[in-house]
Amino acid sequence: MTILSFFSRASRAFHGYPAYSKLLVLCTLSSGGLVAYSESQSDVGTPSIDSSDPKKKKVVVLGTGWAATSFVKDLDASLYDVQVVSPRNYFAFTPLLPSVTCGTVEARSIVEPIRNIIKKRRGEIQYWEAECVKLDAVNKTVFCQSNIDNNLAGSSDFSLEYDYLVIAIGAQVNTFNTPGVKENCHFLKEVEDALKIRRTVIDCFEKAVLPSLSEEERRTNLHFVIVGGGPTGVEFAAELHDFVEEDLIKIYPTVKDLLKITIIQSGDHVLNMFDERISAFAEAKFSRDGIEVQTGCRVVSVSEKEITMKVKSKGEVYSIPHGLVVWSTGVGTRPVVRDFMEQIGQGKRRILATDEWLRVKGSESVYAIGDCATIDQRKIMEDISSIFEVADRNNSGTLTVEEFQEVIDDILIRYPQVEHYLRSKHLQDVTDLLRGPLGNDRQEIDIEGFKLALSHVDSQTKSLPATAQVASQQGAYLARCFNRMENCQDNPEGPRRFRGSGRHRFLPFRYKHFGQFAPLGGEQAAAELPGDWVSMGHSTQWLWYSVYASKQVSWRTRMLVISDWTRRFIFGRDSSRI
Amino acid sequence: MTILSFFSRASRAFHGYPAYSKLLVLCTLSSGGLVAYSESQSDVGTPSIDSSDPKKKKVVVLGTGWAATSFVKDLDASLYDVQVVSPRNYFAFTPLLPSVTCGTVEARSIVEPIRNIIKKRRGEIQYWEAECVKLDAVNKTVFCQSNIDNNLAGSSDFSLEYDYLVIAIGAQVNTFNTPGVKENCHFLKEVEDALKIRRTVIDCFEKAVLPSLSEEERRTNLHFVIVGGGPTGVEFAAELHDFVEEDLIKIYPTVKDLLKITIIQSGDHVLNMFDERISAFAEAKFSRDGIEVQTGCRVVSVSEKEITMKVKSKGEVYSIPHGLVVWSTGVGTRPVVRDFMEQIGQGKRRILATDEWLRVKGSESVYAIGDCATIDQRKIMEDISSIFEVADRNNSGTLTVEEFQEVIDDILIRYPQVEHYLRSKHLQDVTDLLRGPLGNDRQEIDIEGFKLALSHVDSQTKSLPATAQVASQQGAYLARCFNRMENCQDNPEGPRRFRGSGRHRFLPFRYKHFGQFAPLGGEQAAAELPGDWVSMGHSTQWLWYSVYASKQVSWRTRMLVISDWTRRFIFGRDSSRI
Repeated sequence: MTILSFFSRASRAFHGYPAYSKLLVLCTLSSGGLVAYSESQSDVGTPSIDSSDPKKKKVVVLGTGWAATSFVKDLDASLYDVQVVSPRNYFAFTPLLPSVTCGTVEARSIVEPIRNIIKKRRGEIQYWEAECVKLDAVNKTVFCQSNIDNNLAGSSDFSLEYDYLVIAIGAQVNTFNTPGVKENCHFLKEVEDALKIRRTVIDCFEKAVLPSLSEEERRTNLHFVIVGGGPTGVEFAAELHDFVEEDLIKIYPTVKDLLKITIIQSGDHVLNMFDERISAFAEAKFSRDGIEVQTGCRVVSVSEKEITMKVKSKGEVYSIPHGLVVWSTGVGTRPVVRDFMEQIGQGKRRILATDEWLRVKGSESVYAIGDCATIDQRKIMEDISSIFEVADRNNSGTLTVEEFQEVIDDILIRYPQVEHYLRSKHLQDVTDLLRGPLGNDRQEIDIEGFKLALSHVDSQTKSLPATAQVASQQGAYLARCFNRMENCQDNPEGPRRFRGSGRHRFLPFRYKHFGQFAPLGGEQAAAELPGDWVSMGHSTQWLWYSVYASKQVSWRTRMLVISDWTRRFIFGRDSSRI
Repeated sequence: MTILSFFSRASRAFHGYPAYSKLLVLCTLSSGGLVAYSESQSDVGTPSIDSSDPKKKKVVVLGTGWAATSFVKDLDASLYDVQVVSPRNYFAFTPLLPSVTCGTVEARSIVEPIRNIIKKRRGEIQYWEAECVKLDAVNKTVFCQSNIDNNLAGSSDFSLEYDYLVIAIGAQVNTFNTPGVKENCHFLKEVEDALKIRRTVIDCFEKAVLPSLSEEERRTNLHFVIVGGGPTGVEFAAELHDFVEEDLIKIYPTVKDLLKITIIQSGDHVLNMFDERISAFAEAKFSRDGIEVQTGCRVVSVSEKEITMKVKSKGEVYSIPHGLVVWSTGVGTRPVVRDFMEQIGQGKRRILATDEWLRVKGSESVYAIGDCATIDQRKIMEDISSIFEVADRNNSGTLTVEEFQEVIDDILIRYPQVEHYLRSKHLQDVTDLLRGPLGNDRQEIDIEGFKLALSHVDSQTKSLPATAQVASQQGAYLARCFNRMENCQDNPEGPRRFRGSGRHRFLPFRYKHFGQFAPLGGEQAAAELPGDWVSMGHSTQWLWYSVYASKQVSWRTRMLVISDWTRRFIFGRDSSRI
């Protein structure tokens, strides 16, 4: 996880020293050239088409996004017979998708062919450009279909057997069944989506200036609506505003006063997953920029020409005409995963559940990472009796502080909510939990007292956000587990099993949050950094440039992204309709 | 015509001194940076939407290709009320399209928004993104339709009245009515075509490596067929071969022996418009590269899976399976021009005819430049009696050498075929035409003798090729005429009118050939340079880089194209399916 630890180091180093961040961009650029050439020239082994070793276990990986790529990059492919299946033959650096919508960065600059990534791994990894259309958990088989719609020779269907399956196919857009959204909205999940938005923005301008239109029609075509005030929606609004201000009003000067950008947010503030200082900063900046933020509104329906909303507080329903609607709210489960969930008894869940080791619940040998799944954290109260039994070594029916301290490390590893609970209650030490209701020290505690002491801990169970950072860490974690599968079979490194004997084979997955950015346009950004630090303004934008440049998956994309930024500074963004 | 004269100078300077050409690329690059920034920051006037001055004559320009852009760039827009209509809101540097098909150069690097180009012109030029759907020569009106297929507000249709119309909409692909070509072939005329080919090439490889295919099916999908052995087809074949050799076999190593590229040419040699040394060089290089050249074949039909050909010499018909067919043979007339030709009595012609001043024959105030029209050069024999009458000043019924010499300049300007004829006969001087059949000097010649002397001259009438060079020169020529329309009304600069009195207002258009390149792959190119020089090999490729970099329409595209070439040298081409 070098890129993420770099992020962490960088964010600490630059907090308060923003001038250094510009230096970093330059260093990244200059040192890159040297490494880049040698990297691109490195020779690789030549795998053959039927190279599968019957002794090796077959691992099938579905997806080429953050989770899958991170897994494949870190996996010791010499240990397994690895096959990757995905309809996208490239990895896309999705955090830069909003930049692609306005041409600040080119689409090609943020993608890296998956074949380039896997050819550098030791051992052999095969990739098939196809979509997984069905999972058969009983026969351990995945059914795939090539997504190429040309009439090329040969069958498009094939199936693969697996010993281990890693599902990392991400999520799909969640329209919350709002009528008209699928037909009339743009989304921002794939590279193609971003390119389509780019073309449509130009279309809106070209149509708006045609001689045959009334001013009302021009206004309608230049009304850009963003549904969802999360980081993606906000960043798109900011990018669009910059694109218009810096480039488009120069070449479409006749309509510069007719343009309007509106963000519709169901919550009370945009960026409500961030610190409230960031929300306020963003809203103030948008207000200065003339970007309208409509909070407390729920979209009821979207038609070709209008978007209809309900004001939550008053119940009032009204419609506004639009030229372009970008829908960026939440994620949903893909049909193939939904079907798989039915097979394995998860049919009633909203999203595929895994345990803390990222194994799909109810299906042997299947793992799920990234946006397509969520970790169903075990509640401590479910195991409370077992924990008490294990801890009470002398079977006295009561627990001493010493006995509790012996199991405390295992508890903290197995149930991360305990740590969150301690932090939320500002407690220094776990043993503080055992204090009496009046805060007095107790030497011993019985099972009822133990249950009472931990009864509120599970309320602090947190599910992880659907971000690139989580997916990437999960992929890397799973690869480490796969690499040491045999090792850890004999020498388990995980916490003690409270139910059953021995230890868990691996430590459970634990997410480390390295912070999050929200670019706000006009060379300003906001960032929530580790340690509850908040950073806003121009220097944060430079930190953003540095971090995003350093996090690129290859030297090629790093160079391209940096040269795109440079090009934009000098020449502006391209408005050709391609 | 600075770019073309640069070409001419460069080609002369570098002939024989190929090492200098590398230096030129570097100079272009470094000096470019300085000019580029200042150019991009230059401020421009702000035209309003209803700025038309009723006193100015209305010029409507159809197209944004080489001819139209060249015209608009050179036109003094303060003299006219200029409106440009084209479905493409950008100018594309089409000679680099074959490079776009394989990602050597990115599509965005070879396009420049037309609005960027027109905002730099003095005065005001308006641009509408729409397609001209009908021309009404009687009412001097063009009917346009926006080509945006989104459901944006307002009517898509509008009409424009003109005083002068400049048709520069180019040509469309000519399928010669071969069955199945439209449905199953790719073309290479627009940027979109190139992008589609790029995606399809990757599709062919991704499909070919899928586990479910037989070797025969893999071979079929990796058979790339190019119909037409002209510069475009040949360059695409070369690019594709480089792409495969330099990039694709590294990431699709399992199928490297299954690939095949075939060029089908109806003539006896590829590049048959070039010097035969170049044809031979190209064919030898292709033979070494394993690119099959099938000459003397005519394509009879193309189906989804097969292409059927007839060997001209034997009459034998056979079919070969294909993965991708690129059709690049000849150009045809667009429907809107065809309809216009019917209106003005040119219905029986294959292609719209203009006179030597680029005025459409049979329609007042309409001009046609570029690939959509051809110059119908007036035959000298049609005017032979008038010429004789004008030249015979003393009405003696015979022409003396002195009398002939007085009109000779006007004849050479008005009838360029005379010069071609002299060159073809290796004659030094025009008066040599008047020599008797035995080569003896004659002092006088009568009308019959005069007719006889010039009787074979018209056989040397040449029509111009459909190239960017011709279109660009025509646009610039026409702009110069428009700029001096009033001036030359009073002081005509053209040749003497042999029919009628006075002089023509302008000199007729005269094409200057600055040479032509044919890149052959593997960093080798062939070039036919002015003065019948031929240059082939690696140094020619460097000349090609220099000339193509210098010919770019803006500093932005120049920088982008050069950085794309650099990126390709370091990192190779991108194979992501976008």
